[in-house]
Amino acid sequence: MRLHGYFRSSAAYRVRIALNLKGVGVEHAFRHLRKGEQRAADYLAMNPQGLVPTLETDDGALLTQSLAIIEWLDETHPAPPLLPADPLQRARVRAFALAIACEIHPVQNLRVLGAVRELGGEQAAQDWAKRVNADGLAACEKLIAHEPGPFCFGAAPTLADICLVPQLANARRFGVDVTAYPRLLQAEAACKALPAFADAAPDKQGDAE
Amino acid sequence: MRLHGYFRSSAAYRVRIALNLKGVGVEHAFRHLRKGEQRAADYLAMNPQGLVPTLETDDGALLTQSLAIIEWLDETHPAPPLLPADPLQRARVRAFALAIACEIHPVQNLRVLGAVRELGGEQAAQDWAKRVNADGLAACEKLIAHEPGPFCFGAAPTLADICLVPQLANARRFGVDVTAYPRLLQAEAACKALPAFADAAPDKQGDAE
Repeated sequence: MRLHGYFRSSAAYRVRIALNLKGVGVEHAFRHLRKGEQRAADYLAMNPQGLVPTLETDDGALLTQSLAIIEWLDETHPAPPLLPADPLQRARVRAFALAIACEIHPVQNLRVLGAVRELGGEQAAQDWAKRVNADGLAACEKLIAHEPGPFCFGAAPTLADICLVPQLANARRFGVDVTAYPRLLQAEAACKALPAFADAAPDKQGDAE
Repeated sequence: MRLHGYFRSSAAYRVRIALNLKGVGVEHAFRHLRKGEQRAADYLAMNPQGLVPTLETDDGALLTQSLAIIEWLDETHPAPPLLPADPLQRARVRAFALAIACEIHPVQNLRVLGAVRELGGEQAAQDWAKRVNADGLAACEKLIAHEPGPFCFGAAPTLADICLVPQLANARRFGVDVTAYPRLLQAEAACKALPAFADAAPDKQGDAE
């Protein structure tokens, strides 16, 4: 399989973690987002949204949207599971993941920040990104306040942790004081001790700058 | 069960459609978003993100995030299925749903448009919402260009259609020329012929204005 990604893309980072947790090796193709390579015609033919990641399967199927890719991976490579077995707990894990994937990440991505910058300048864009991350992570902290640790939902990493770790990295880049989220930091520390997470970090990728 | 929603919320609208397709009746509680009722302390205790919908189960469990609620409903009430059986097709349906739920809807919700309005005024907010919808739906049109109709993915409605119908309603409110998306309109027409979709429409709800 081949993963089209970008070292700093949170969505690609999520998929890298999931592949590592499953022990599935892939070839990496890099699309430099700041140079606009995701809008090249050959890439748009694979991914009409012009976003990374895209996963090309061995059969040539093209999968887009990180959460859909990870659910597919979990269905086709069941061990270790990335979602709990109980439907209610699955819903809680998915809700946490979506709280990041819907309400934080896309509201502070390059495209949106570019539009904010046009309206209000660089400081407005920085303030926007910081606020979206801080507000969103504060809600996430509450979502798992009563869940057992050390991971977001208990003793093993799930889709929730896969979304959390890249988002915390973004939050730090935007200057958010992440010490306000001790439960999230506990989960992040448990994740970072695992090679599957450590090896997926942006600075370990072939296109890292 | 009790669904906390708002007639015009796309996310609540999705869950109403899914409940109707499953034939699951619920009590409705209304949270008026423009009056800020989603930020009342009693509601934030249920839903720390301050978003609708929240589904309260008969056991008192609280489920948030529309896509997580719908996946839970599909796992606990399997008929009729809202996702195909084949993993690859499930991934495609989920990717389409996420293309709306991540990349369009949260980037044009009340909160974000309020922030854009503060930076650039009313016209900037209207232009923003229109562009986000138009660009996002153009990508969605391509995602299903080669899928059989009449629904987004074949002969029965799925999670993709559940996300599409509320988003098209938003796009029209923001003045997008939706005739540019004939394949999406074909799917919408097939959906609107079903009572499950028609009965879930905003203007049929108890809090409609």
